[in-house]
Amino acid sequence: MRLRIDLSYDGTGFRGWAAQPGQRTVQGDIEAAIAMILRLPEAATLTVAGRTDAGVHARGQVAHVDLDDVDPQLIERRLRRLLPDDIQIRSVTAAPEGFDARFSALERRYTYRIVDGRTGPDPLVRHSVVRWQKRLDIDAMNAAAQHLLGLHDFAAFCRRRVGATTVRTLRELSTVRVGDVLETTVRADAFCHSMVRALMGVLVAVGDHRFEPEWAAEVLTHAGRDSRVNVMPPHGLVLEEVVYPDDAGMVARAVESRRQRALRA
Amino acid sequence: MRLRIDLSYDGTGFRGWAAQPGQRTVQGDIEAAIAMILRLPEAATLTVAGRTDAGVHARGQVAHVDLDDVDPQLIERRLRRLLPDDIQIRSVTAAPEGFDARFSALERRYTYRIVDGRTGPDPLVRHSVVRWQKRLDIDAMNAAAQHLLGLHDFAAFCRRRVGATTVRTLRELSTVRVGDVLETTVRADAFCHSMVRALMGVLVAVGDHRFEPEWAAEVLTHAGRDSRVNVMPPHGLVLEEVVYPDDAGMVARAVESRRQRALRA
Repeated sequence: MRLRIDLSYDGTGFRGWAAQPGQRTVQGDIEAAIAMILRLPEAATLTVAGRTDAGVHARGQVAHVDLDDVDPQLIERRLRRLLPDDIQIRSVTAAPEGFDARFSALERRYTYRIVDGRTGPDPLVRHSVVRWQKRLDIDAMNAAAQHLLGLHDFAAFCRRRVGATTVRTLRELSTVRVGDVLETTVRADAFCHSMVRALMGVLVAVGDHRFEPEWAAEVLTHAGRDSRVNVMPPHGLVLEEVVYPDDAGMVARAVESRRQRALRA
Repeated sequence: MRLRIDLSYDGTGFRGWAAQPGQRTVQGDIEAAIAMILRLPEAATLTVAGRTDAGVHARGQVAHVDLDDVDPQLIERRLRRLLPDDIQIRSVTAAPEGFDARFSALERRYTYRIVDGRTGPDPLVRHSVVRWQKRLDIDAMNAAAQHLLGLHDFAAFCRRRVGATTVRTLRELSTVRVGDVLETTVRADAFCHSMVRALMGVLVAVGDHRFEPEWAAEVLTHAGRDSRVNVMPPHGLVLEEVVYPDDAGMVARAVESRRQRALRA
């Protein structure tokens, strides 16, 4: 049976989501806990909606795991008891027919937070807000974002991986200011590796008046990584939400996203 | 000259505000930094509006320090550079005539946060939210609070100190729920030691249905600490704001609060 796991984590203490030998990772911690609960000879592998990098946080992460017949509520309770408090298990449920945490997802939503005042971040949220020394112009940032929205090849913003498409649909890239804190919302069908942090690098370069907003359109035409684009630090980034179709649409969506990615690649 | 220092801190890494030999404290860190900046032979003593306990946080703490003629902006910049990022220096300014961080204050405002859902706190704010295992009844908590508002002797809620009054005016004690998070706002002219956390102990006992709301009125009649009142954990507590009169009222207020405390003691 397939379990859907909804979870949050503070990425500060992890080398990212993906299990790596000898490193503390979110996937590694949860797989070890499940193996312990079920006395599995080897860990059952988790599949995740957003493979967050080292230091990136999540409030609305979703994963799935295939296990022999188990009680989801029992797994939920025992995971909560076993896992440290930088991982929060929001729920464990039996996944609907055709559910795939990665391929059924319609959309991922991230936020990125920057504080640009003289005083630096509020100490209570300093682990999830990036400090910027100069005041940023959010009108310029939002003007730059207009050039990036829609269906594009985001190769200039992605770490290249053989056989993987970098075509994505960027649905939102909007920044609001509350006092000294800038909060950028980024929504797309999917993201390639480090794409949000590279998009933020473009917005910050424009907000800092190092480039005009139109520069964003120019970067987008590049077939590979643009060295003028800084990848912003991971700790400002939070995966807030993964959107799935209703249960009836689940199978169709997984087939469609596998097909699209194959076509584009 | 007298400097006013506005600051915030994450209380997690400190043994509270007050300097103690061999312990890391907020006062100790800042006094050491000022001594270093000005090459003072011994530390200049800070006076603070709210002497927070170990683990208690502050967003709107205010302190003052008397120094020989200095440039407040220079002290501000150098403190920011020297202090670790769990202390945020919001501003350093020349204090108006008659200002006393402690005795000029008209009001202190604190918040206390509890999460009472099954899932525990959002990992990103777990250091400033207290987990409660049972669902709390906030209507009962707010009914209990009504019995505590106003001018009373809060001896039942205070750690006794010789010669110190425990008479205070409690102006607000109100709880709102946002999802699984309960946020209680507490305002008074001043608080005695551990008073907010003991008030929270009464509200939680009532919200948990261990006592009726009227029990709060009974506790208030006790002349000393009530052993049925739990002092809630420190990490849910944040000193949010200290309110001062306008510059003209500063001297009068300090004289008045010293007089009141002497009368009551």
